[in-house]
Formats: sequence, structure tokens, C-alpha cells
Amino acid sequence: MTFKQKLYNIVKKNNSLLCVGLDSDIEKIPEHIRNGEHPQSTFNKEIIDATADLVCAYKSNTAFYEARGKAGIEALKMTCDYIREKHPEIPIILDAKRADIGNTNEGYAKFAFDYLNADAITLHPYLGIETLGAFLRRKDKQIFILCKTSNPGAGELQDLKVDGKPLYQIVAENVVKNWNYNGNCGLVIGAPYPSEVNIVRRIAPSLPFLIPGIGIQGGEVEKTVKAGVDANGSNAIINSSRGVIFASSSEDFAEKARGEAMKLQKEINKFR
Amino acid sequence: MTFKQKLYNIVKKNNSLLCVGLDSDIEKIPEHIRNGEHPQSTFNKEIIDATADLVCAYKSNTAFYEARGKAGIEALKMTCDYIREKHPEIPIILDAKRADIGNTNEGYAKFAFDYLNADAITLHPYLGIETLGAFLRRKDKQIFILCKTSNPGAGELQDLKVDGKPLYQIVAENVVKNWNYNGNCGLVIGAPYPSEVNIVRRIAPSLPFLIPGIGIQGGEVEKTVKAGVDANGSNAIINSSRGVIFASSSEDFAEKARGEAMKLQKEINKFR
Repeated sequence: MTFKQKLYNIVKKNNSLLCVGLDSDIEKIPEHIRNGEHPQSTFNKEIIDATADLVCAYKSNTAFYEARGKAGIEALKMTCDYIREKHPEIPIILDAKRADIGNTNEGYAKFAFDYLNADAITLHPYLGIETLGAFLRRKDKQIFILCKTSNPGAGELQDLKVDGKPLYQIVAENVVKNWNYNGNCGLVIGAPYPSEVNIVRRIAPSLPFLIPGIGIQGGEVEKTVKAGVDANGSNAIINSSRGVIFASSSEDFAEKARGEAMKLQKEINKFR
Repeated sequence: MTFKQKLYNIVKKNNSLLCVGLDSDIEKIPEHIRNGEHPQSTFNKEIIDATADLVCAYKSNTAFYEARGKAGIEALKMTCDYIREKHPEIPIILDAKRADIGNTNEGYAKFAFDYLNADAITLHPYLGIETLGAFLRRKDKQIFILCKTSNPGAGELQDLKVDGKPLYQIVAENVVKNWNYNGNCGLVIGAPYPSEVNIVRRIAPSLPFLIPGIGIQGGEVEKTVKAGVDANGSNAIINSSRGVIFASSSEDFAEKARGEAMKLQKEINKFR
């Protein structure tokens, strides 16, 4: 099954466009888990079980795992294995923000798609399409290209005008016109920029969007959803990480995460 | 000691601008090592011992290690530990090509600088300086920003004109003007583009350049060196990976790697 089919099914089943970001910074994990064995994956499993009927995807950012070296990579693998085993209908997005030259990308593709068995990866566009074959030829996987990122300073390069048009729009156009030859590309656009989300939705009417940055990073749900969904009120994967997974730092963290996820799921659906 | 001081000392001591890329693809490692325990780090140790008096740095590309998951990260760690222990005067460049939003980059900085204890990292510029504080504030470490990459299709975005100037030049200018506030930035510019190397050298007269792509990727040594070095014939780290480490696939691989490294070291020095 392709990522797109998987996404279509789970959006329908769970009636949700919410993606929960498993950015499980070891420093922020509740103490009773942090001091036990396998803290990151134990934490993730509880979050996953508490939210699996409320989400359309899980997103793991590799940085929070790599920070711990080998032990972190093991935690990430255990997390992906757990989702595959217990909730195989939920797609896993590896937020790795990679991109290297041709032969090197094979290593990253193996890590994401074979070792971790993720369904999708995020990539930097700076090296161009020519280097990305190792990812793009994996027809069943989804390739989310950074377009307009959620950080306050995203515009330094992304808003530079090329023939009167901001660079992020050129990226979106190139992805639609040339990179998407296997129909497996998507775009990353930050929720703090709803008018840019709206512009890119017009450039790419049917591409899946991964939209991080609601909540703590300042993105408003109503604007984000209205700007991001396609003509069918779908194809926007709206991510919240810290706001959900660290809703409480006590023993009730999973219950509180479920509460936050449910609130977000409903709020998102209100504006679809 | 800062990366720059370390680089200055080793360039002098070894009379070399050659960086050897430990892109130790498990599939290409000689069979007698591939079938043993810890194949990647065993291979690397032999390469390192055979070339340590001929190089100014080692560069490890994370992709070739991540491809093997936890075992690969362990191999990368063992390799970095080995360089630190046996050849502490040689800087380690982690060719990781990362960059994420602010708080997330802390994880990557920890991985590179604390877990692996590398001296330098390569980063994508697409998210802008605002996100890169986690790296830039590590004054003793060097931050190499991708400027003009060595791949044939690098120009798709990098050559786009912004006010008549290609994007890669804007990146170089921004790094010189704003990103380098701690004096620890460098640029990555591919050897297959010697005239671009030359232009960027004029924009950034004193920044260290990491120049991959000689040999197999098509960069010519003479043009690369002449365009890349600073006014003192230095500050250019010229990388060769496959051409050196896979010079032979038999038991004599380390000896052959030494031969190739020596040849390159001399050829580079001829044009400094």
C-alpha cells in the first residue's frame, strides 16, 4: 500500500488530520519514565496507545533520538516497530530533513525506509531533484520537501525573489512540475505562515502538505486548516508535537496527551 | 583548541590540504573485513593508520553509517573515538548535512559535538541563520554551510538569480556578513565548479572551504586548488573519499589508499 492510500484510509477511519510529533526530548520526559529502562520508547508507546484513534500519522524527528547516539537510534527503531506492530494502519513520517549527493542518499533511504520502515521522510531542497532519486524512486513512500519552514527566520532564503517570485514558490512549482514524476511528493509548510500555505495550495492543489507549527510555534488552527486542506477538505497533515506529548510532566502524561489530541482533532475538523 | 587552530597546526605538520572521506559503504569494504566483527570501524582504523601523516582532516558522511542503523552509529562512534585517541591532532568533520528549527538542532549538535566529539559539521542553509544557533554558538567547532554542492544538478536552486546574483553567492555573502559572528563558519563548494569556487573565494577571502568532488566526481586538482586556497595557499580542505579508501578491494587496501593519498597530497601541494 502506498503512503497516500494509507493516509486516505486513516483520515477516514479516525476522522482526523492531526499528526502527533514524537519529539521525545529525553530531558522533558516525566521523571518516573526517564529514570527507567528504554525511556524514549516507553514514553512513546504510552503516547501512541493513548492517541492512536485520534491521529492520521505519527512524526518522529530524528534529532531527539540522535542526541543520545546509539541508544537513541535504538529507541527510534523500537518506536517505529511498535507502531508497525500495534497500529499498522497509521503512517510513520520520519522528520529527518536530509539530502546529500546521489550515491550518499542511498544510505539515508535505507535508514528511513528499510531499517526503520517509515512511510515518509522530509528532505531539504537545496541540492535539487538530481540528487534525490534514491528517495523518489520508492513509489510506496512519500517524500516531503521543505518548502516554507515554520521558523521565524524562514524567509532569509525562502522569501528571496527569483524573477519576482519567492524561492519557496519556485520550490513548490519545481516539485509539482518535475520532482513528482512518481506521484509521491509532498511539501512541508509551516503553520505560522497561513497566507503562504494558501498560495502553495494553489500551486499544488493535490499534493499532501505536512504542516508543523500549530500551538507553541504560533500557528492558528483555523487559518492553518482553511489554507492547507485540498478541495476535499483533506491532504493536510497538521502536526503538533510538544503541545500534545508534553501536556503534563506527571504520571498522567498519556491521559493529558489524549485530551490535547482530542481537542486538536475536533478543532481541526471544525474548519475542514 | 578551536577547529581553525587545529587545522592550521595539522596543515603545517603534515604539509597537506587533503581530507580523506571515510564514506565506508559496507558493500564496498573488502570481503575479508566485511565478514568480520565491526567491519566499518575496522576498515576505517586501517585507512586512518595508513594515511594519518598525509591528511589535514577526516570527513565522515553519516549516511553510510545510518544505513546500518544502530550498528552503523556504533561504527561511526568507534571511528571518531579512534581518531581522538590515536591521532588527536587531526580534526574530524561530520558530513551530516543537517538543519532543523531551533530547539531541534540541539539534538543534532549534541550528536555531532558531544556524542561523536567531532570538530565540525556540514549544514543546509535553507532555514536561515535564525535556526542555527545551537551550532554557531559552539565557538570551538566549525560550521560548514552548503554553498555550491558538487552534484551535477546543484544549480537547480543554487544558480537561481536573486537580483541578478546566483543564490549560492547570496548564501556565501550572508554567511560572511551575518552568520560568522563567532568566526567559526566555513563553506562547502564542489570541486566540479572551479569558477564558482573562485568567485566564492573572493566573497569570503578568509573562510575555510570544504571542497569535495575531486577525482571520481570530476573535479580537477589544479583548478580546484588554485581557485580554493586563500592568500596564504591554505584554508581549503580538499576531500577525496572513494578514490582513496576504495583504491583496492583486496587485502592491500590500506597500502593502496596510502599510495593514492600520497599522490593527491603531492599534486595538491604542487598548485598551492
